[in-house]
Amino acid sequence: MEDCVFCKIVAGKIPAAKVYENEDVLAFLDIAPATPRKGHVLVIPKEHFSTIAEMPEEAIHGVFSVVKKVSFALMKECDGVNVIQNNGQASGQLVPHFHVHVIPRHDKDGVHLGIWESYKYEGTEMAQARERIKKLLNAD
Amino acid sequence: MEDCVFCKIVAGKIPAAKVYENEDVLAFLDIAPATPRKGHVLVIPKEHFSTIAEMPEEAIHGVFSVVKKVSFALMKECDGVNVIQNNGQASGQLVPHFHVHVIPRHDKDGVHLGIWESYKYEGTEMAQARERIKKLLNAD
Repeated sequence: MEDCVFCKIVAGKIPAAKVYENEDVLAFLDIAPATPRKGHVLVIPKEHFSTIAEMPEEAIHGVFSVVKKVSFALMKECDGVNVIQNNGQASGQLVPHFHVHVIPRHDKDGVHLGIWESYKYEGTEMAQARERIKKLLNAD
Repeated sequence: MEDCVFCKIVAGKIPAAKVYENEDVLAFLDIAPATPRKGHVLVIPKEHFSTIAEMPEEAIHGVFSVVKKVSFALMKECDGVNVIQNNGQASGQLVPHFHVHVIPRHDKDGVHLGIWESYKYEGTEMAQARERIKKLLNAD
């Protein structure tokens, strides 16, 4: 896609610190790492998709095989990894080309990621949410 | 695994608000949703694995096919979705059975998820991080 910064990286028009590449998938360092550990990797399909909802299964499998490979590698030298994939501006997605963040974590690194305040279901809310989502799933 | 709460859900020993199930994968509502929208879904493999690093590719593909299905469904009625998968206590993983959070988001829902403070690479730090991770990847 013409104005997509990640498509430009795939095409070699913008430099990136690549750590892994195969025919369909590219992994490179996020220039703005989420943790002081600074080994935050992005894994993207070379083909342009904006969100997971658009992606064919094969493309998802290809990307998450590399996410596993990168996570496995990082976990040799850290205490944990956050795998985060945002879809849509409302979710915090900044670049509209599907990408998976693989973020190395260390005990007590002081980063607030992967943990959140939570809400409670009241009354029949949980049963209602379940029925709503089951309907959405069956509407495919 | 005997003391695993998600294995107990798979075995039917603990109730859960299931939204989707196939031979290898189960999707159900998180009882402590991360957003006021309250349709936060967990997708798990029925077999016990603690982190992504342990999972065979086939199991990863099975889980993320369902993550896509659930994300696609949720995005019919929301503005975005966070897909979050934590590995290890340091990352915020609370239940040591591999699970993927699929969290529906709405514009200005006031939830701080999927966006974070970032660090900067200084001097040769980025090149060093790249070389370190490439070595870790090749040490497989």
